[in-house]
Amino acid sequence: MAECIRAAIAGYGNLGRGVESALLQNPDFSLAAIVTRRDPASLSPASGVKVVREADIASLKGQIDVLFVCGGSATDLPEQTPRLAEDFCVVDSFDTHARIPEHFAAVDAAAKKGGNLALISVGWDPGLFSLARLYETAVLPQGKDYTFWGRGISQGHSDAIRRLPGVLDARQYTVPVPEAVEAVRSGECPELTTRQKHRRECYVAAAPGTDLEELTRQICSMPNYFADYDTTVTYVTLEELRTQHKELPHGGFVIRNGRSGPDGRYRQTMELRLDLDSNPFFTGSVLAACGRAVVRLHRKGETGCRTILDIPPALLSPLSGEELRREFV
Amino acid sequence: MAECIRAAIAGYGNLGRGVESALLQNPDFSLAAIVTRRDPASLSPASGVKVVREADIASLKGQIDVLFVCGGSATDLPEQTPRLAEDFCVVDSFDTHARIPEHFAAVDAAAKKGGNLALISVGWDPGLFSLARLYETAVLPQGKDYTFWGRGISQGHSDAIRRLPGVLDARQYTVPVPEAVEAVRSGECPELTTRQKHRRECYVAAAPGTDLEELTRQICSMPNYFADYDTTVTYVTLEELRTQHKELPHGGFVIRNGRSGPDGRYRQTMELRLDLDSNPFFTGSVLAACGRAVVRLHRKGETGCRTILDIPPALLSPLSGEELRREFV
Repeated sequence: MAECIRAAIAGYGNLGRGVESALLQNPDFSLAAIVTRRDPASLSPASGVKVVREADIASLKGQIDVLFVCGGSATDLPEQTPRLAEDFCVVDSFDTHARIPEHFAAVDAAAKKGGNLALISVGWDPGLFSLARLYETAVLPQGKDYTFWGRGISQGHSDAIRRLPGVLDARQYTVPVPEAVEAVRSGECPELTTRQKHRRECYVAAAPGTDLEELTRQICSMPNYFADYDTTVTYVTLEELRTQHKELPHGGFVIRNGRSGPDGRYRQTMELRLDLDSNPFFTGSVLAACGRAVVRLHRKGETGCRTILDIPPALLSPLSGEELRREFV
Repeated sequence: MAECIRAAIAGYGNLGRGVESALLQNPDFSLAAIVTRRDPASLSPASGVKVVREADIASLKGQIDVLFVCGGSATDLPEQTPRLAEDFCVVDSFDTHARIPEHFAAVDAAAKKGGNLALISVGWDPGLFSLARLYETAVLPQGKDYTFWGRGISQGHSDAIRRLPGVLDARQYTVPVPEAVEAVRSGECPELTTRQKHRRECYVAAAPGTDLEELTRQICSMPNYFADYDTTVTYVTLEELRTQHKELPHGGFVIRNGRSGPDGRYRQTMELRLDLDSNPFFTGSVLAACGRAVVRLHRKGETGCRTILDIPPALLSPLSGEELRREFV
């Protein structure tokens, strides 16, 4: 049996619930508390664990080995993770790709100051897809890789639609374009535009009396979110939306078409594919395994910030090196 | 630009040529020598590098940072890798799964004695597939994983046929059974027998006058190799065999059907897939990237034996941590 790891979760939205559920699947973890900015009495965690007000988080100092920081990347994590890394070993899922270097620097300074170890930007992308891009490129330096996402719900795009006047609720599915996927899987290395790689399917419940033609125009022309894509908008009732589109599936794949051998004569293809019924419960599972590695490395004396690219894979598993060599190698 | 790594290759068969070709794709490596048990004059390496007789390998001591040991797993590597690990940092592709613990122990003792670092059993299986099994199981502890190989040439099975009287030459393709693949990809977790997972296709050139019916019977009933499989034998001319079956394609995939969320209600699927035009040139590419990691860890003072499960992924890439965070995470 592996060592015992005491954990807490800050934030009890979809991801916090995903981490909680994952910890229950890993008997070497014991969950000590859920930390919330809401009224603790308003939460009833599935695990029945105690709920601590965020203002009282200092009471957990020295009581836990790792804190899973489950806020949003837009405004929560850039402030929360560095602040909490001063007092705790932390794991987050910060996923604003362009701002990762800056987030890394802030968390690294805070973690070093507090003598803690932090692991940022884990989940599946960034996270497992980052690993796939790294391994694929290290092994096949000559080649081209492609990341496709979907079919799955993008929370950011769903939120963007929800902010439009007349929208009661909305779900947006990101969908890889089959022709592009086929070209890449067949070993070609096409140059693909944003529009050629993915399309966007929107399911929208609108308030009675809304000008749907105008709303469709507004959605499809929204810069950054939809203007560069082929987008379809389907109007449904609020009930349809909440029954037939209530889950958060996602997935995608990272594929590299490489060349090796004399004159690059051999085509070598590597692909990681994920097909997820629930994005937050899967992301929570990745965070849990990573939390185990953080605690082990911290116990060896490591401090500062890391990404999953720095973590020896064996540390993610509860098994010993000997067991892993026998069963996995 | 990354540090410069001086390498040598022991053994100049298919895999040795694969490593040589891979090193040429990685400008941070410089190849110092190829080591052979054959007459050095009989070799003309593609890279034009000098050839050293194995008896003179001591002349390379202190001249190289890493030695790629490219012998066979049956008899070469169990003797070669421990012996060479006393004098050099080494990487091998030992692939007899059941004997990995024993090989690890022998190499670990030798490498520690010599103050060197060794990495064994890298390639794609064991190697990248071992990593996939580890990551998939660490993230999704509840579930079942499947490894399928092929369609591709199995050298061991081809050799087994070649040893039969009347056989001039042979190639054996391992082929995943489509129905089994489909069941697993659809998310089912079937219990599959050896026969249900793979079938074996043999292409054989027989000497004139051979009793083909009897030869077919001998092949199909060979214990360990064919008796547990549905096997087909196709007789072809030596010329057909050497023109239409001259390459060594392979590949396969590791897929895990996991469950997460409350009562395991969500199906989560992870899959690594490889489609390789050339098994030895791909395996050589994996060894090259792993050699880079070995040299870096040895420069940090590490000694003893490792598998790819112990290696921080970032060390496989020539890029810096900062570059990796910007471009890959």
